[in-house]
Amino acid sequence: MLIDDLMKTLEEKEERMIEIRRYLHEHPELSFQEEETAKYISDFYKNVPVDSIETNFGSERGIVVTIKGAKPGKTIAIRADFDALPIKEETGLPFASKNEGVMHACGHDAHTAYMLVLAETLAEYKDQLSGTIRIIHQPAEEMPPGGALGMIKAGVLDGVEAIYGIHVMSTMKTGHIYYRSGNTQTGRSYFKLIVQGKGGHGSSPHLANDAIVAASSFVMNVQTIVSRRINPFDTASITIGNFDGKGSFNVIKDAVTIEGDVRTMSVETRDIVETELQNFAKGLEATYGVKAIFEYKNDYPVLYNDPEITEQVRQALEQAAIKEVEGVLETPPQPPSEDFAYYLEKVPGCFFYVGASPESGETYPHHHPKFNINEKSLLISAKAMAAVIARNQGGDSIAT
Amino acid sequence: MLIDDLMKTLEEKEERMIEIRRYLHEHPELSFQEEETAKYISDFYKNVPVDSIETNFGSERGIVVTIKGAKPGKTIAIRADFDALPIKEETGLPFASKNEGVMHACGHDAHTAYMLVLAETLAEYKDQLSGTIRIIHQPAEEMPPGGALGMIKAGVLDGVEAIYGIHVMSTMKTGHIYYRSGNTQTGRSYFKLIVQGKGGHGSSPHLANDAIVAASSFVMNVQTIVSRRINPFDTASITIGNFDGKGSFNVIKDAVTIEGDVRTMSVETRDIVETELQNFAKGLEATYGVKAIFEYKNDYPVLYNDPEITEQVRQALEQAAIKEVEGVLETPPQPPSEDFAYYLEKVPGCFFYVGASPESGETYPHHHPKFNINEKSLLISAKAMAAVIARNQGGDSIAT
Amino acid sequence: MLIDDLMKTLEEKEERMIEIRRYLHEHPELSFQEEETAKYISDFYKNVPVDSIETNFGSERGIVVTIKGAKPGKTIAIRADFDALPIKEETGLPFASKNEGVMHACGHDAHTAYMLVLAETLAEYKDQLSGTIRIIHQPAEEMPPGGALGMIKAGVLDGVEAIYGIHVMSTMKTGHIYYRSGNTQTGRSYFKLIVQGKGGHGSSPHLANDAIVAASSFVMNVQTIVSRRINPFDTASITIGNFDGKGSFNVIKDAVTIEGDVRTMSVETRDIVETELQNFAKGLEATYGVKAIFEYKNDYPVLYNDPEITEQVRQALEQAAIKEVEGVLETPPQPPSEDFAYYLEKVPGCFFYVGASPESGETYPHHHPKFNINEKSLLISAKAMAAVIARNQGGDSIAT
Amino acid sequence: MLIDDLMKTLEEKEERMIEIRRYLHEHPELSFQEEETAKYISDFYKNVPVDSIETNFGSERGIVVTIKGAKPGKTIAIRADFDALPIKEETGLPFASKNEGVMHACGHDAHTAYMLVLAETLAEYKDQLSGTIRIIHQPAEEMPPGGALGMIKAGVLDGVEAIYGIHVMSTMKTGHIYYRSGNTQTGRSYFKLIVQGKGGHGSSPHLANDAIVAASSFVMNVQTIVSRRINPFDTASITIGNFDGKGSFNVIKDAVTIEGDVRTMSVETRDIVETELQNFAKGLEATYGVKAIFEYKNDYPVLYNDPEITEQVRQALEQAAIKEVEGVLETPPQPPSEDFAYYLEKVPGCFFYVGASPESGETYPHHHPKFNINEKSLLISAKAMAAVIARNQGGDSIAT
Repeated sequence: MLIDDLMKTLEEKEERMIEIRRYLHEHPELSFQEEETAKYISDFYKNVPVDSIETNFGSERGIVVTIKGAKPGKTIAIRADFDALPIKEETGLPFASKNEGVMHACGHDAHTAYMLVLAETLAEYKDQLSGTIRIIHQPAEEMPPGGALGMIKAGVLDGVEAIYGIHVMSTMKTGHIYYRSGNTQTGRSYFKLIVQGKGGHGSSPHLANDAIVAASSFVMNVQTIVSRRINPFDTASITIGNFDGKGSFNVIKDAVTIEGDVRTMSVETRDIVETELQNFAKGLEATYGVKAIFEYKNDYPVLYNDPEITEQVRQALEQAAIKEVEGVLETPPQPPSEDFAYYLEKVPGCFFYVGASPESGETYPHHHPKFNINEKSLLISAKAMAAVIARNQGGDSIAT
Repeated sequence: MLIDDLMKTLEEKEERMIEIRRYLHEHPELSFQEEETAKYISDFYKNVPVDSIETNFGSERGIVVTIKGAKPGKTIAIRADFDALPIKEETGLPFASKNEGVMHACGHDAHTAYMLVLAETLAEYKDQLSGTIRIIHQPAEEMPPGGALGMIKAGVLDGVEAIYGIHVMSTMKTGHIYYRSGNTQTGRSYFKLIVQGKGGHGSSPHLANDAIVAASSFVMNVQTIVSRRINPFDTASITIGNFDGKGSFNVIKDAVTIEGDVRTMSVETRDIVETELQNFAKGLEATYGVKAIFEYKNDYPVLYNDPEITEQVRQALEQAAIKEVEGVLETPPQPPSEDFAYYLEKVPGCFFYVGASPESGETYPHHHPKFNINEKSLLISAKAMAAVIARNQGGDSIAT
Repeated sequence: MLIDDLMKTLEEKEERMIEIRRYLHEHPELSFQEEETAKYISDFYKNVPVDSIETNFGSERGIVVTIKGAKPGKTIAIRADFDALPIKEETGLPFASKNEGVMHACGHDAHTAYMLVLAETLAEYKDQLSGTIRIIHQPAEEMPPGGALGMIKAGVLDGVEAIYGIHVMSTMKTGHIYYRSGNTQTGRSYFKLIVQGKGGHGSSPHLANDAIVAASSFVMNVQTIVSRRINPFDTASITIGNFDGKGSFNVIKDAVTIEGDVRTMSVETRDIVETELQNFAKGLEATYGVKAIFEYKNDYPVLYNDPEITEQVRQALEQAAIKEVEGVLETPPQPPSEDFAYYLEKVPGCFFYVGASPESGETYPHHHPKFNINEKSLLISAKAMAAVIARNQGGDSIAT
Repeated sequence: MLIDDLMKTLEEKEERMIEIRRYLHEHPELSFQEEETAKYISDFYKNVPVDSIETNFGSERGIVVTIKGAKPGKTIAIRADFDALPIKEETGLPFASKNEGVMHACGHDAHTAYMLVLAETLAEYKDQLSGTIRIIHQPAEEMPPGGALGMIKAGVLDGVEAIYGIHVMSTMKTGHIYYRSGNTQTGRSYFKLIVQGKGGHGSSPHLANDAIVAASSFVMNVQTIVSRRINPFDTASITIGNFDGKGSFNVIKDAVTIEGDVRTMSVETRDIVETELQNFAKGLEATYGVKAIFEYKNDYPVLYNDPEITEQVRQALEQAAIKEVEGVLETPPQPPSEDFAYYLEKVPGCFFYVGASPESGETYPHHHPKFNINEKSLLISAKAMAAVIARNQGGDSIAT
């Protein structure tokens, strides 16, 4: 059977996956600047019998590889991202970043490594495959507006009936795979408020209009959006991460800039937050006589896993009985946002999680300078995605 | 000399002043309900050779007594108020209030007592007097809109060139007289805000609009009016004395009523406060989506003593060398408001203070259930006002 | 088969259920005062072949009826509540409340009606029953501390292996039954804060300590508990429903009483809220120099449906294929709290929902003066509970 | 008479005062860096028959010049400051600053110019003088801790019985001199609060402790110090001029630094503010669980003019009948702080104001890039101070 062949071949290639991952880890590149990484990826495919390799897909460094099965069938897409983060690595690993201040602190090196080897393997077995597999190597997942949007605009999803993605998770147990149906990762929005008052001397507040006081009032009032405007059974988080009111202690501040982040699990809630923030900005003007220049920008959407496809993924993983996998479990919703959500707005699919807690037992969260993964997650990811693809070979329709 | 005659006669009548004061103290009546007191006052004048007695002056129980001097001269007014307070007396005095729950806890009994005896004395000496003295017995000083307004509308100040008033002060040393030029007592305003949100169940705040939260935000924001909008060298106090948000603990409150009090020392500042409160009410609507029904009402104005007349009063008191008086001193501004201020808006004048700290040394502030005065203040008040009147006899012009 | 007999018999008794419900609806009684209702219930059982009737169970008006099946088996309990609410009925129904100001506005009349007829029916078929069925007629569900606690203390759950309850829901579609596994209805807590400052005159705030300002600051700061202390994927609602700061507009308020309600879906979150509220009360003392007397009382717990039993209920309902039921669906968590949760803290069980939207299409929420239900929900409730009981007859073990 | 000689001689030297002032204006130096200015001053005295010149007085660039009169008498001090401000001049004057970014925007050039010429003149007439005149050329008035403290520590006031200073005021009418008795300029304090919370990701606020929210709450609560803790007839201003919460929009800020300025007109009020700010910092810790590191530092004290000496100054100015002076008037309190206040804490004295509104009618406030003075104020200042000195020659005792 195809699946058994895939599993066996992937096992044989485990070392290569690890090597690739380590090489990428040593050479991280920031979002929208991944030149060498993109070249590395396209070079990899030079001797691989894929049907096409498209580079600079989507005006950035996206790479799309197509493998056409011998038999007719659906077109599906699988995606791995390959950008790194502006973090100074502190892991002390022998293959730690050589690009000072840049680090693969989110596991995208692992994503790319397993995906390359999986793609090669699939190409080797394309005689047994039905339909078309589109492999999306995506840049710039970490930085809005994200690399997905550009690739979608450039047509990466044309004809695609379903899409799948994996994230390795240092915070989830190695040997476990996690899935969730429906709204799964938060959507996020950005806002900025400039509070323009009038400067003045500390001894004459009545001749000025204190922007720090007005902005502080805004911060306090805004807390009521989450506490009173959002359904307690729903999810929303509003963080003001920047309150730039730097000034001289005895000079009344003329202007303050506030920037914030909104996380929600539905478009409805996201829109409530936007409307309320706008109201609060207008209210600040009316109350304090300041000028409140407000800007709101929706960013990565809520990541929505199609329930039917997610159920198929679950079944595929269960049935594959991957020997390195102890459990396939439902996960609660995940706080971070992820630009895979853009694909899922266009075609049904499932984004799921492969546990990668380090053997050492010392776990650091994603984006931490000491972030590390268990490299067993590479083979598990490759096998898991292979299982999902094999499941799709049976001619079952993918319904939404 | 006239002044020596007046002083001597007043001394002889000190006992009567005290008797009258005690009688009035025993029979206090609330503002706008002073029927017996008004009758007592008009009865007093029955055998006094005054030129006219007008009762029910100003549609309420005001009494205006006119004494015309034999010689030509200016018309001046002197005023004493005669209402009491809704306070249950706890002095234990033998002549304590017999009208349960009502008390002369502000010294208006003393004002009326000295004024009656002074008026009688002036009438006795009217052959030596120049010009006209109008004696204003005013009801309802304690309760807005105050008794002064009605008497002014009824013409009590017609032809009056200057007006004088005295307040006995339990908190000032007996034997001292205090004056202040310019803005001397606060003006006050009243405001009311109804915050209309939408009720609901505690478990579903997003379906309601919590009026308690919006009203609390208003209270906090309003603090910035005094802290940031008013000149630090100026005076303003904004008190929210009523926050009526009584409700069931688990029901989101639909509406809250707030009532407050504003004290200022100038019309400009009063108007700044009004404008800002209106802005804050509008801002509340914009911010919280509630309806904010706002009402603002100016009440007793700032009491303004004419500087020139105040200087004349000071000189008159100094020159009179009243033997019971140790010092004539400048006082800082006084926090309470006083409806004598309405007279001073129309004609120049001076409202000054006669120390009345009890002999016992136990001083209670005005409006306290144990409030009491030193009765020596009666003779001092009578002499002080007599000195001011005598000073006006010399034909000096009263300038403003 | 037993289940077919039960279904058929219940259908025949539908009219009686409706009659009983209407009678109860016409004669509502407030929580802890349900004398006539309790008497009505115990009278009902006089000629019913039950094994025991215990009245005044739990020091209040609780009634416990025991039916012993002919065959050995487990003991299970089923519960219906019978108190009404202090609401003035505005339905205009021919059988509207005759007890002015009291109303069955939550459907407890329906619960009792279906339960009486079901009990009678079960008693008739007890030869075919295995094990023991304990029927709990519970008073005072609507008013903390609730009637359940007392009955539990008096031993109502002794020997009980599982417990079941139904709530009819005007807001859910008639013909649907809803269930949820795990945390299903909010737990709630009550808190009270007395802010003791110092009274004073509006013109001298520095001599007082304004309790309204301090309490308003508390209200605003408390909003940050939900907005910043609670996991955005978790549920918490904190409502301050009572802010009793009633006073005179120009007198600085000496003390304010605040009362509030907390809703959570887990003990952990409930405890975070309690700890934070206590911190905020202490912080108020430190900040404003007031005395903050704080009281926190946990009330109805989170209602937790045992997942295994809930699955059994779901299966029983599906398998019963009740002809009046179109769908058996999962429901999202329910905002209200319910004292059935106390039973579920002691023994595993399931509390589920029977749709009862009125035929007219005009739906009013529970506790509304125009609340009404579709009386078809009576038969559906009886049949649903019968199905659950029948399912338990097969000798399956009830695991937790 | 001495005074007539002084006046005549000063008039003859008016041009030199203006030249000196323009030279200094062209060569401004920042506080604590006034090397050239100090040299210019000490050079000036090289050929002046003073009794001593002490340079680098008080470890900084202070200069003290002593003139001993031929006749016995008291020792008095007169002071002029000579530092400039970090402001880029925009006056367009032909003698505008040649030191880019530094400007005499407060008139200290004028102070030094008149003082040098006055000192020279006094030295010329020392045969007619009684007692000793100590001339204090003080650096660093503009920058805390100020130059006065160091000179006092070094003994500049030893044996001094009274001290006098003048400030030219662009905002007061040229030809007017202003005085005020008692508390005249604000004292000021500095405070700093570091709010240490815990950083975190915007999607998980419950794992962090948001320092921006806690600091905003502090800002809002602090408004109540001025609005509710300070006597409305007193003066206090609390400005938070720095709220440094700069950060990334989606990262919960771990720490915020706040810096502020306090202005008061009495030590009592200053201490109330300090105590309350400390309470609010402690309250923040209790409420929000942050660490609040609070620092408070009293800076320039309230400037207190001795009433008796101020009255003597007033009389001296009136009697001198300086022809360029139209009026000697009382001024309201002045908002800025001034380190002359340190001298007045040690010895009685008077700091008064010489009007210097520009002829052009275009008035810019002190510390403005277009600040300018009317140079007539130089002669007026010299004559005014000469009049005060002459008044002290008569052997009158200077009482406090």
